[in-house]
Amino acid sequence: MINVLFSARDALWPQYQPVLEAEFAKLGIEVNLVQETDAPETVDYLIYAPLRDDDDLSVYSNLKLIQSLWAGPDKLLRNKTLTQPLARMVDPGMTQGMIDYVMGHILRHHLHTDAFVQAEEWLTDVAPPLPSQRTVAFLGIGELGMTCAVAARDYGFNVLGWSRTLKTDAPIDCFAGDDGLHHVLGQADIVVTLMPATPATDGIIGADAVAAMKDGAAIINPGRGELIDDDALLAGLRSGKLSGATLDVFREEPLPRGHPYWAEPSVLVTPHIASETRVPTSSAVAAANIARVVRGEPVLYLVDPALKY
Amino acid sequence: MINVLFSARDALWPQYQPVLEAEFAKLGIEVNLVQETDAPETVDYLIYAPLRDDDDLSVYSNLKLIQSLWAGPDKLLRNKTLTQPLARMVDPGMTQGMIDYVMGHILRHHLHTDAFVQAEEWLTDVAPPLPSQRTVAFLGIGELGMTCAVAARDYGFNVLGWSRTLKTDAPIDCFAGDDGLHHVLGQADIVVTLMPATPATDGIIGADAVAAMKDGAAIINPGRGELIDDDALLAGLRSGKLSGATLDVFREEPLPRGHPYWAEPSVLVTPHIASETRVPTSSAVAAANIARVVRGEPVLYLVDPALKY
Repeated sequence: MINVLFSARDALWPQYQPVLEAEFAKLGIEVNLVQETDAPETVDYLIYAPLRDDDDLSVYSNLKLIQSLWAGPDKLLRNKTLTQPLARMVDPGMTQGMIDYVMGHILRHHLHTDAFVQAEEWLTDVAPPLPSQRTVAFLGIGELGMTCAVAARDYGFNVLGWSRTLKTDAPIDCFAGDDGLHHVLGQADIVVTLMPATPATDGIIGADAVAAMKDGAAIINPGRGELIDDDALLAGLRSGKLSGATLDVFREEPLPRGHPYWAEPSVLVTPHIASETRVPTSSAVAAANIARVVRGEPVLYLVDPALKY
Repeated sequence: MINVLFSARDALWPQYQPVLEAEFAKLGIEVNLVQETDAPETVDYLIYAPLRDDDDLSVYSNLKLIQSLWAGPDKLLRNKTLTQPLARMVDPGMTQGMIDYVMGHILRHHLHTDAFVQAEEWLTDVAPPLPSQRTVAFLGIGELGMTCAVAARDYGFNVLGWSRTLKTDAPIDCFAGDDGLHHVLGQADIVVTLMPATPATDGIIGADAVAAMKDGAAIINPGRGELIDDDALLAGLRSGKLSGATLDVFREEPLPRGHPYWAEPSVLVTPHIASETRVPTSSAVAAANIARVVRGEPVLYLVDPALKY
């Protein structure tokens, strides 16, 4: 019998509890899974998505593993009391969720769905072109960006990729550098931004990028809020240069009430859902990783605090 | 040199003219392509999507072929002056357009996109399930319905098919008959209707079908307006039993101003665009079929007036 503490916001407990218990049962592991404990020293494993950065992790004196529910370890590594082994979450459901978000909103822009949502009359001459006549550019073609780019290409869209350093042997047409960015932005009907937030990518969708984009192009940002210069994007949308923006991430989250994005009809705000961890798949990954420790096998996705990933 | 008359609504001429001319040139056919003529007896071929049912086709006394731009020949066969060979349009772009419409609106319902379009605040706990946790039922699994069903299955949704007579050897799980319909409707989160309009399918989505559907299910109808009992569907939406309807076809088209569908927030009306003929692909098919006649080869997609297809 192992003691597993599930520590995350309350709303997640009723979703995860039955699925985690079923996964442990499938693996033949007897588990005492709880949401709270008075005896932190008895906890063997922590499944963790904390509300606060400053939990005192030193109270869990016999912990064998912290299995995070998050893909990124940055926030957890900021906790000075962390001394235990930490595994990040690699959730196939999260990847599928990102594909759903990207494909769903590419097709929404492709089909001009919003025009019909807003219209209260029978529009005419509105058939969209074929997917092969539409170019979708992916800025940021790391693992997640490339997976989405390949899904869009397999669907039938004309797909281009861009990264700071040129990808070779890529399954799509790739470009790099400032010239490459201008070229790709000038071709794309729909631009998807899936870059990490770094000093080099901060505000990369700024006035220059907006000016380089095709008239009527749309942008989908499920990557990082810092990629967008919000004033430049709003100016591009209000002037009619760009036809729409679907934004899932923001410099400040939740996006504050009164932010101009809420009032702009060509902007769709979604509440950072594209990369959400999914219960069935992440539960299976968490239970299997804990089972590896129980059986003396090497843990997967262990975070090296020095490397920060 | 052959004389080809393009007879369709004016808006289509500037779209088709350059593409048709390029297609004939590729095939090595010298063509005099016009939108109007004073000498109908000189017309060799008619590319045709008439505005009216009662054109006098007898004036085209030397016509070798009428190449329709429509998939269905019903309306053309009603013209009593038709004596010339008639080919229906089999447009791969139309099939792709139907896949785009069906996949785009499945993903829109899957992602709850409308909830974000309507919200003016940061929603929480709104991540959709995985596609494999969603069941999509296709009512009507003829060629077009099955193509869309397979696209949804290949994407990752759990897909069921229903037809009046059981399909065997189908690539998806299929059901038939009244019991099968109840079963399929009870399982589906999203129902797509792609049946033909016949006496047996008239109003098939009526009060009984709505009652058999899963609470919160959505319906997408790109098939025929006659499949839906409009009052029963509206009652199901207004009671909250169903979460939404995306409707592309109606008993009367254009859908009259003042029809309750326009005012119902859970209904999205699109103006019969899912099965629109597409210019690049249909131009290639039309030019190639006319080239077959020029070269003495058998015409494709010839309509048998006795069989009506």
